[in-house]
Amino acid sequence: MYEGAVQDLIDELGRLPGVGPKSAQRIAFHLLASEQEDVQRLVESLVRVKERVQFCETCGNISEADQCRICADPKRDLSVVCVVEEPKDVVAIERTREFRGRYHVLGGSINPIEGIGPEDLRIRELLSRLADGSINEVILATDPNLEGEATATYLARTIQPLGVAVSRLASGLPVGGDLEYADEVTLGRAFEGRRRIESSG
Amino acid sequence: MYEGAVQDLIDELGRLPGVGPKSAQRIAFHLLASEQEDVQRLVESLVRVKERVQFCETCGNISEADQCRICADPKRDLSVVCVVEEPKDVVAIERTREFRGRYHVLGGSINPIEGIGPEDLRIRELLSRLADGSINEVILATDPNLEGEATATYLARTIQPLGVAVSRLASGLPVGGDLEYADEVTLGRAFEGRRRIESSG
Repeated sequence: MYEGAVQDLIDELGRLPGVGPKSAQRIAFHLLASEQEDVQRLVESLVRVKERVQFCETCGNISEADQCRICADPKRDLSVVCVVEEPKDVVAIERTREFRGRYHVLGGSINPIEGIGPEDLRIRELLSRLADGSINEVILATDPNLEGEATATYLARTIQPLGVAVSRLASGLPVGGDLEYADEVTLGRAFEGRRRIESSG
Repeated sequence: MYEGAVQDLIDELGRLPGVGPKSAQRIAFHLLASEQEDVQRLVESLVRVKERVQFCETCGNISEADQCRICADPKRDLSVVCVVEEPKDVVAIERTREFRGRYHVLGGSINPIEGIGPEDLRIRELLSRLADGSINEVILATDPNLEGEATATYLARTIQPLGVAVSRLASGLPVGGDLEYADEVTLGRAFEGRRRIESSG
């Protein structure tokens, strides 16, 4: 519909996740009207991210060096590993400031429908990290959905025989949520996992 | 939250219209996981659009040459000019295949709240196109909203003294729409602009 270069840009933008044809057009026209240096900054950040960003040799998190910031930090607890699906889960957990151990990024979850099996995830790498005996707890923090649960179950079965403590993040009501809007599975989990309140006195 | 280059990219993507922090993060991770050549194609299309795309000297539409495809086309009717706000309006009108004249892109509409007055639009350029007398009709196709109407009214008052016929696109019910969902202004316009149906016979 548009002339060459503009249509090419709309096509490329339309391939990004969550960007439909209308938003691709809107972004393209925004960029056309933008200052040259603003577009240049976007271009440079794209080039730089592909040049510099790699995956941490230890945990598989995104990193600008062989070891990511967390694995390279001597103050982190080396005896606990939190297993997550994606690098963005590391960021989410770091934001809580509750966890001082290290991570292991699987790169996804077991999903037979999409043909993703255990061998497609970084499970071999996790087992080799556990081999030297310095890690004594593994926290499974895969997503609380079908695939995440299947992955956690598989990992628990694989890791427990090694004599390593395995735990799973608690499921239950989201804090700040409204009971009536909780789905039945979440509410069921919240009942299962209920905790006795001790009288303080 | 992320390491340098990734966070820079998320920041840059988050500046694009309609891209919030969550989608910026999603797009950045998608690009991280993409093949080098896919990201390269996006980068090249960004660079090319800024290098090649300019504005048509005559009508202000986007163009890869001094004259846009439409202004350069000798088969277009030189006596009619359709005035629109943005290049994307040209595309929308071209899609109807109803109009065979040429365009004039204003680059926006009069909007006192955002400080956009007639002098910020390509109105002087329109008047100089009208000066030689070869154009005898101007169709005002600015948006059917407050700013577009104000712009059309201003242009009509400015152009009519030059002895050029001025028209405005019809407002009314959208074709394929449902009467009960039409807003009252649109329905009011549809009444005002009602057309007598001649009995054929």
